[in-house]
Order: sequence, then structure tokens, then C-alpha cells
Amino acid sequence: MATLIAPSNHSPQTDAESLKKAFEGWGTDENLVISILGHRNVHQRQAIRRAYEEIYQEDLAKRLESEIKGDLEKAVYRWNLEHADRDAVLINVVIKSGKNYHVIVEISSVLSPEELFAVRRAYLNRYKHSLEEDVAAHTSGHLRQLLVGLVTSFRYVGEEINAKLAQSEAEILHEAVKEKKGSHEEAIRILTTRSKTQLIATFNRYREIHGTSITKKLLDEKSDDFQKGLYTAIRCFNDHIKYYEKVVRDAIKKSGTDEDALTRVIVSRAEKDLKLISDVYYKRNSVHLEDAVAKEISGDYKKFLLTLLGKED
Amino acid sequence: MATLIAPSNHSPQTDAESLKKAFEGWGTDENLVISILGHRNVHQRQAIRRAYEEIYQEDLAKRLESEIKGDLEKAVYRWNLEHADRDAVLINVVIKSGKNYHVIVEISSVLSPEELFAVRRAYLNRYKHSLEEDVAAHTSGHLRQLLVGLVTSFRYVGEEINAKLAQSEAEILHEAVKEKKGSHEEAIRILTTRSKTQLIATFNRYREIHGTSITKKLLDEKSDDFQKGLYTAIRCFNDHIKYYEKVVRDAIKKSGTDEDALTRVIVSRAEKDLKLISDVYYKRNSVHLEDAVAKEISGDYKKFLLTLLGKED
Repeated sequence: MATLIAPSNHSPQTDAESLKKAFEGWGTDENLVISILGHRNVHQRQAIRRAYEEIYQEDLAKRLESEIKGDLEKAVYRWNLEHADRDAVLINVVIKSGKNYHVIVEISSVLSPEELFAVRRAYLNRYKHSLEEDVAAHTSGHLRQLLVGLVTSFRYVGEEINAKLAQSEAEILHEAVKEKKGSHEEAIRILTTRSKTQLIATFNRYREIHGTSITKKLLDEKSDDFQKGLYTAIRCFNDHIKYYEKVVRDAIKKSGTDEDALTRVIVSRAEKDLKLISDVYYKRNSVHLEDAVAKEISGDYKKFLLTLLGKED
Repeated sequence: MATLIAPSNHSPQTDAESLKKAFEGWGTDENLVISILGHRNVHQRQAIRRAYEEIYQEDLAKRLESEIKGDLEKAVYRWNLEHADRDAVLINVVIKSGKNYHVIVEISSVLSPEELFAVRRAYLNRYKHSLEEDVAAHTSGHLRQLLVGLVTSFRYVGEEINAKLAQSEAEILHEAVKEKKGSHEEAIRILTTRSKTQLIATFNRYREIHGTSITKKLLDEKSDDFQKGLYTAIRCFNDHIKYYEKVVRDAIKKSGTDEDALTRVIVSRAEKDLKLISDVYYKRNSVHLEDAVAKEISGDYKKFLLTLLGKED
């Protein structure tokens, strides 16, 4: 369930004209920008962009970049992108910075096979390199194997489960978690190729055998990017709503707030399942997500995220 | 340029009825089957299959399987499949047999990124597993890395060349060919992710630096499946017409003939570029390909392959 509140009837032309007005005069009318773009779904935003280009011969994305600044700018820029394009941009940021590889894991493990393939197509169109080409050129070893395997996967989608396989592969994963030599390649193979349904059966089998969830012992202070990657993949396959709740919780808890993570989850999920993430957040923390967000950040950036969270004006 | 001779106007219904007649009575009229299916392009064959199903409530592919036998059956069965589906079947045969891994390399290196993705989709629909899932589960080590990397690739298609990269990656490939430790993973990365145009620039740079083509020293009697895979990939990227000419030449030269290879090339390329392969064959051997094939095999199987080679009846 989405949190985004968008009217079913809107005129892209009128929206484009209102945005133009918001840009004119001394300083930008951020309130107006937020009240429009924060209440339009992806198709409507694309239509506004086209209408704006047609009427003013100007790229709306570029104009927005010059009009608004800071966290709000980044949030609005990402929000305005079509879904696959947005994920391609997020992945490219990771590759260029060499930080937050778990974001690549998150995107490639949460999306459906078709959605993930659309991201690869968008990446290729935007950067004139293949996604896996850039990931592989900037990483090495097991981390590279895991990331390239995840982003290039095109998994089977179906309800069939092979129980024998779940049993044997639960054991392979157990060896990998214990860090025994030579088992990492097999763990990577399993996580990057099996269907999500099969993987969940394998994780469940693991819990039955070992009395604890597979992610329990995977992370400690010494964990490297590869181990964090395994952890993130398993959490995303298992229950991506709970995973996102944790990302948001950590982002808010962090001293100084992790705006990048907060923006990423809210912008990426507002049209999809942010309501579910928000519900899990409330259950876990006894605080409404919008109240926690409101307490943590400020100004127009806060106004924008709360709008996407479905807070009525 | 194709060798297939197909009429622009045909009636799928009439063809279906003629095939039904060929099946009736004592023994099958193979001549009739060949004269129809050997002169229809992929869209026409699909239309015949649909018409046959509609009129006789029977799957034409299954009926053909029960009517004809041996090398002819295999050739007709594969010919009748839609391209992506045929490649999915060819790859599955390799996976199940554990032999001829170079066929997987060949398919994934010759096809365009979009065609290769269509094969993955076809494989998934047909076998309810992802292609990379089955490849990865049946191989290990560097061979697995190479094969999975090749089949999951979605390369950039464009004319841009990064000359500096061609230089540095030519050296990486040189190290891998010399079998120095630790360089295989990088060689795999390059071959599985770079655009074909970039790869050809890299191979050319290699020849300029080392005075010999990169494939020259790659194969000897001790070569394993991984080295054969590297060799096949490089040859296919460089010039797949020359590569196929060699496959056909070796298939004919082999004592007893390699019917599988011969059928694969003729059936896979008859609608695409078999004429070019045939021209290169003549230049290299001073014998027309159809004469060489005619000398090597016999019966209806020979009649069928010669028909696909464009020999007029």
C-alpha cells in the first residue's frame, strides 16, 4: 500500500504553469512545488515534465536543480525520476562513491526480475555502460561476485519449492556463515540464482535445523562489505518491509540523521508499500513514522517527506 | 545473408494439410516434409504449427517426433523452434550432458544483448528455472564464472571505444593467457562485461603489442573447458562468421562427422548469415560447403541440410 496521495484528475499543463510561477520572482515558492509534485504519481510527473518542456522549452529537472538546494533538491530530483531510472541513478552513486554497496544489494534483491531488468536497461541508456560492467570494474573478489550475480539475475518467479534442495542449500549457507573455507562461492551461487520462494524455503529450513535465523550471526563489528551484502540480500528476500523499517529506524536513530537513507526509502516506496513499512515502524517503535521523521528533520525537506508519507496538509 | 529459400506467399492451412498427408499411409513422406518446412521462415513455421494444431488438435512438433527419426528428426525439431527457444534447448542439452560447454559460450557471445535476453526468458518459460541457475548449479570455479557471466550479460551496444582501456585490458588478457596467477578473474570480468566494440579494440591492441592474435597461444592439447571457453568467446566476438566456418569445417573433417555441430550451425544460421559462412568456407577450402556436406552425410538428413543451405531442388 502506497502513502502517496495523488488526485485522479490533474492537468499536466496547469501543473507546469503553476511550477513556472513558483520559480518566478525573488526566490522559489517551495511550498507550491511540494504541493504539486508531492501529490502526483509517476505517470503524472512524467506528463508534467513533458508539458513543461513543451510550453517553456526547458528541462524541468534542470530548472528544479537550479531552484532548490540541499536535501530537498536531492529528494525532489530522485522523486521526479521514473522508477527504473531512479534506481539506476542510486546504483551509479554507489559505484562512483565506493560506499554503501548494500544499496545495490537492496535494489537488486527487492525488485522483481522484470523490474530489475528495466533498471539495467535504464542504466545502459543513461551511462552508456552496462550496469554489471561498472559494478565489476569497481569491485573485486567475493563482493564483486555477489553484486554482479545479484544485478544480473533474472530469477524464476513461481511457487514451486524443492524441499530437498532447501535442505542441502541451508547447510551450504550454514558453512558460509561459519566462514569455512571454499563455501562462499556456493553461498553466492545460491543467493544469486535461486527463486525467492525457494530461498525463503531454504532460510526457513535453516532456522528449523539450527534454531536461529541465518542472519543472526552474520554481522558483527568486523563485518566487511561482502558480509554486509549477504546480510542485506537475505533480509530483503525474507521480508523487504521489515528490512526497510530497519533502514528507516537506523537512519533516524543515527546522530545527525542519515538523510540519504531516509530519502531513498521514502521516495522509492511512497508509490508502492510505504504504508506497510510505516505500520511495521509503529508496531516496532510505538511512534508514528511521520512523527519520528518530523522530529528529526526540518524545513521544506521535512514538508516534502511528510507529504510523500501521506500527511494531509 | 540467409541461405533459406522461402516463398513470400504461402498458406499455413494448405501447408498443414500437406504435412498431414505426408504422415498418413505406410511410412512418412520425408521428401514432402522437407520440401515444405525446409522452405519456410520462422514466422511461416510458427503459423503452420498454429494452423496444424487448429485443424487436427494435435501438436505438430510431437507428431514430427513420432514420424521421423535419427539425425533428421533432431534437425527438423530444432529447425521448427523459434530462435530464442531453440537456443534455450541447445543450452539445456549442454547442461544436462555436461559436455560441449563451448556451445553456451558460442550462443551467448554471438547473439545481441536483446537476443540473449530473449533466450533467458525462453529458458525460464520452458524449464521453470533460470538459465544462470542451471548453469551455475552444474559447473564450478572459473568455468562457472565465465559461463554465468556470459549468459547474464547485457552489454552496451555502441561504437565508442576507450583506447586507454583497450591498452590496459589487452595487458590483463595477456597475463591471463600466460596463466599467471590471479589474472583469470579479471580476464573473465573483461570478456563478460565490455561492449563487443570495445573488446575488438582490445584484441586489436593485443595484436599490435604482441605481434600475434590473442587466441594463438590459448589452446593446446591440455586445454580444459575454461580455456576452450575463453578461446570460443574471443573468436565469436572477433568474427563469428569465421568462427562458424571453423565449426563446420571441423564437423566435416571429424571421422564419422559431428552431426550435432553441423546441424547446429546450419539450422541456427540458415535464416541469418549462412551464405556468408558458406562463402568463407569456399574461400578457405576451395570446395563449396554444400558439396562438402553432400559428400559427408546421406539420405533425408542430407536432403534437409542441403535444402537449408539453399540448394535448389
